[in-house]
Amino acid sequence: MAGNSFGTLFRVTSFGESHGPAIGCVVEGCPPGLAIDTPLIQAALERRRPRLAGALSQRSEPDQVEILSGVFDGRSTGQPIALLIRNQDVRLIDYSRLDRLFRPGHAEYTYWHKYGINDHRGGGRASARETAARVAAGAVARHWLEQRYGIALSAWVACIGELQLPFRDAAELARSPRFVADASREEEVEAMLARHRADGDSVGARIELLVRLPEPFDRPGDAWLDTLGRALMGVNAVKAVEFDEAPGELRAWIAVKPTPSVHLPRRTIDKAGRPALLMTRGKRDPCVGIRAVPVLEAMAWLALADRVLRERASGAC
Amino acid sequence: MAGNSFGTLFRVTSFGESHGPAIGCVVEGCPPGLAIDTPLIQAALERRRPRLAGALSQRSEPDQVEILSGVFDGRSTGQPIALLIRNQDVRLIDYSRLDRLFRPGHAEYTYWHKYGINDHRGGGRASARETAARVAAGAVARHWLEQRYGIALSAWVACIGELQLPFRDAAELARSPRFVADASREEEVEAMLARHRADGDSVGARIELLVRLPEPFDRPGDAWLDTLGRALMGVNAVKAVEFDEAPGELRAWIAVKPTPSVHLPRRTIDKAGRPALLMTRGKRDPCVGIRAVPVLEAMAWLALADRVLRERASGAC
Amino acid sequence: MAGNSFGTLFRVTSFGESHGPAIGCVVEGCPPGLAIDTPLIQAALERRRPRLAGALSQRSEPDQVEILSGVFDGRSTGQPIALLIRNQDVRLIDYSRLDRLFRPGHAEYTYWHKYGINDHRGGGRASARETAARVAAGAVARHWLEQRYGIALSAWVACIGELQLPFRDAAELARSPRFVADASREEEVEAMLARHRADGDSVGARIELLVRLPEPFDRPGDAWLDTLGRALMGVNAVKAVEFDEAPGELRAWIAVKPTPSVHLPRRTIDKAGRPALLMTRGKRDPCVGIRAVPVLEAMAWLALADRVLRERASGAC
Amino acid sequence: MAGNSFGTLFRVTSFGESHGPAIGCVVEGCPPGLAIDTPLIQAALERRRPRLAGALSQRSEPDQVEILSGVFDGRSTGQPIALLIRNQDVRLIDYSRLDRLFRPGHAEYTYWHKYGINDHRGGGRASARETAARVAAGAVARHWLEQRYGIALSAWVACIGELQLPFRDAAELARSPRFVADASREEEVEAMLARHRADGDSVGARIELLVRLPEPFDRPGDAWLDTLGRALMGVNAVKAVEFDEAPGELRAWIAVKPTPSVHLPRRTIDKAGRPALLMTRGKRDPCVGIRAVPVLEAMAWLALADRVLRERASGAC
Repeated sequence: MAGNSFGTLFRVTSFGESHGPAIGCVVEGCPPGLAIDTPLIQAALERRRPRLAGALSQRSEPDQVEILSGVFDGRSTGQPIALLIRNQDVRLIDYSRLDRLFRPGHAEYTYWHKYGINDHRGGGRASARETAARVAAGAVARHWLEQRYGIALSAWVACIGELQLPFRDAAELARSPRFVADASREEEVEAMLARHRADGDSVGARIELLVRLPEPFDRPGDAWLDTLGRALMGVNAVKAVEFDEAPGELRAWIAVKPTPSVHLPRRTIDKAGRPALLMTRGKRDPCVGIRAVPVLEAMAWLALADRVLRERASGAC
Repeated sequence: MAGNSFGTLFRVTSFGESHGPAIGCVVEGCPPGLAIDTPLIQAALERRRPRLAGALSQRSEPDQVEILSGVFDGRSTGQPIALLIRNQDVRLIDYSRLDRLFRPGHAEYTYWHKYGINDHRGGGRASARETAARVAAGAVARHWLEQRYGIALSAWVACIGELQLPFRDAAELARSPRFVADASREEEVEAMLARHRADGDSVGARIELLVRLPEPFDRPGDAWLDTLGRALMGVNAVKAVEFDEAPGELRAWIAVKPTPSVHLPRRTIDKAGRPALLMTRGKRDPCVGIRAVPVLEAMAWLALADRVLRERASGAC
Repeated sequence: MAGNSFGTLFRVTSFGESHGPAIGCVVEGCPPGLAIDTPLIQAALERRRPRLAGALSQRSEPDQVEILSGVFDGRSTGQPIALLIRNQDVRLIDYSRLDRLFRPGHAEYTYWHKYGINDHRGGGRASARETAARVAAGAVARHWLEQRYGIALSAWVACIGELQLPFRDAAELARSPRFVADASREEEVEAMLARHRADGDSVGARIELLVRLPEPFDRPGDAWLDTLGRALMGVNAVKAVEFDEAPGELRAWIAVKPTPSVHLPRRTIDKAGRPALLMTRGKRDPCVGIRAVPVLEAMAWLALADRVLRERASGAC
Repeated sequence: MAGNSFGTLFRVTSFGESHGPAIGCVVEGCPPGLAIDTPLIQAALERRRPRLAGALSQRSEPDQVEILSGVFDGRSTGQPIALLIRNQDVRLIDYSRLDRLFRPGHAEYTYWHKYGINDHRGGGRASARETAARVAAGAVARHWLEQRYGIALSAWVACIGELQLPFRDAAELARSPRFVADASREEEVEAMLARHRADGDSVGARIELLVRLPEPFDRPGDAWLDTLGRALMGVNAVKAVEFDEAPGELRAWIAVKPTPSVHLPRRTIDKAGRPALLMTRGKRDPCVGIRAVPVLEAMAWLALADRVLRERASGAC
């Protein structure tokens, strides 16, 4: 299969670049009859956006999702669900910069392709922008698995740099702008992020993800771990995935590396054909691990949905 | 894989319903560097539309395609190419009628699903409307195979009812509003169609499709026939596919059945739960075989693109 | 996916050449708990072999299947079921002839590959020998669908050359050595075959295939037709497939061409590098359509098993 | 796809249980013309077996591979390569024990299946025995990538328990019975293993894996990391995968957990229907991480082969 698709039965094909007109995805395999509307998906997208203006990335365009197909009269029809999110301010922000550096279709383009910079979006690991499409798709998977099977899933920041942040309370996590599960630690976290931001520095994070599986899925086995682990590994900036299982439970720890993006400064060439570095402008996000939380959750939901459809096929449920 | 996807390496995932806001597709696997623009795809869509106002279907909304991703500065980037076509007049034409007959998510919806009416769009064979997405995707495949490998492909109406219409001239075919390859027969064809239209009757057709394969593909073998035959079989209203090969050449004959759509009048239930027939309003297309020609061509181009990518992987070219 | 695999959920990967030590297949996706033993599969293989010594092919080695995995204590375990059939008399019959004509790995091998003769087994359409693996896999699919869902499937020779052979009786079909469903016509058929055999001539056939689908599959829809049609198209020497559906029923007609194999006499090159024709030795089968019947049935069973697993995943049953 | 298959273009489907007659695999997508013989694959299998009788597992049956198809006159033909390895002493070791505990197909079987114990072989993570099939397939992938593209790959034990074992010398690694890349540390390692063995205890390990990618693959990008990381994650007893890339190089660290098998003692039920634990008999392997080295290498080779075929399809090489 081509590289921007996930899953076999519950299958997501994503598309779009931050410098293009839109991003989006097509979700295949969602069972019919599920109540789906725009607010459901919009809420997941909101959760993905930086929740404190100053804290994280400066880019905070409002992602407005449109459901193009597969939903009729508020219910899924069993047909492909296409979700569309228009990009904002495309020309001002990205296009001019890219244009200065290479011209696709000319000699430098080949070089660009050959040296794989193109690949950073080509094999599953999403660009920051493309993750919005995954989060939107994940909202559909989540809704189905919660409603139909009572599966629960949650992720939080368990560690930033040297700071250990053990889980304390689900309600506090739900309110936390930084996906910290202990409200008493928020100030400490923000102080650390501010310090790194001031230094133009960045810091790694460790995310913990917990899945609760009721019957008939409460003895998940390695196939589930596999499906889950592979999905998490496909998220941008993830450096390591560790996992474990117990009856009724899957658990994963995901290390997200400090740099805001794997390839920055990116190697490219300018119009004269000379090697160049594409530098990031604007303030850097000092900890991409925080932004990764809803993306990791979305990928986990998608992996679980595919797994559950397989179990249904095999007659296990 | 889910049911609205075609191909493995050159892969198309289509979405959308005639009663929804839009249809479209995501094309994965198109090699980078190919010159692609909106007019290229628009031209293919125009060819799909009935070319004589009175001759075929009455519905003739202009399909305007938008390229959402995968093309940068006029060239494919190697990333997924998303194509979007907005529907026109959705509410006036379709929605109200469907609404009268069933409510998805309620009891009748289950019935509706279980009895497979939903299936007519679910397994690969396109609804008339969804074929626009396939034709748009096919234009990308065609452009690549023509430019890069000099592959040529053409389809025409070889038979309508009892009327035999042998191929005479490629230029005449290119101008023909009914995909007839012999201009001297157009009047005869139109008279026959008019007769059927007046009677509210319809007529089957036989389409012939010819692929010319230059080196290194000039000894295609059965794998090619297979790929081609399966793609053609997935087109709506196709009842039979026959094929043959010769050095440098693949040939197929496709029988399209008389009725405009497999399921019309469609079995459904009304809001009182009673069985009902969903009747087609307006004039019927007396020969859907004519409209099928560009769709069959598009599916053949898509199948060939997937096959060629496989050959490249295996090192045969 | 690579070219010798069929299906997504109920998936068969076949292997083996007539000139190698063995053929076989791996069946993935068979639900656990199904009673499976060697005689079940052996019976299907017996049915595939020519039932009248003089009537069909002269090669009639006994195919002995061995179940290598996926069955424990007489029941399927849900794991891959590997089936193995050793070839007989390999060296005497095929190897020496092939050896005279080309040496894989040398220059002529590239030529051989490039010109696609290799392709005749590469893309799904089976060689006569490889069909044994498909028939063995089909026996597993059939057993599951009969036992679990009461699906019934039958194919017969409906036409040989000009001879029309309408269905008359299931019991007569079950006893017929030539898959003719009317015992009163057997002599006529045998006389026709004898005539063609004497002339070194061959004749085409038309096979009819009928599937009866009880609830909950009794409104199959186009997705089922598609799955079925594509599977049938993948069988060697099939030239055309036509199909139809009705409530509880799928029907297909398959045209099998006269020549015993698509590529005979096969183009190859000898050890001196000169083009050569690989001629068939021994008596030719005057009608490969007869041998195709159990292969078409097997492919249909495999297609249905994959379809049913999908329906289970989608929650339709 | 079903759960015992890996890859899309270079695809391996494995089969077989330790208590059955044989294990093996079918390798699809291997390009034609590659020199392949039994000793090549046998050598890889030998490397997988414990090299010191006393050091590791007590079971050390000689795995004899047979090439069933896809190789002709010492060269790959482009067709599926089936590899078969017969099991030894099947009845004495496993069967009787399993038989005492559950009867597949009866009530307890359902329980067995439902609670997912069956899953430990069902989703990609191989049983110890099944890994032989993967190692055999990996030998084919390795041979192709080494010969055709000069790709190099090596893995070693970088850590056992608290013992750090930095890489020192490739020749020493090649001779090491425990995949340690520093001969001066072998005694220390053996002493530690002996201690754990005496205590009936076990210890975790950390494996390091390095891939060197020459042109045109020397800028691999995230798609490569993804493919590699997912393949490694599918190996039994792997708990965490970490990875990194640099020009011309991919690097991964794999944590293997102490217990010899994820599910031991396995939950099952006896013939009276009472819950039971299936205990491991005989001496335990104190560090499965050592045995995992050739399996991880094999999975990495398979992942790389699939990736390279994709690159060829996309025209990048």
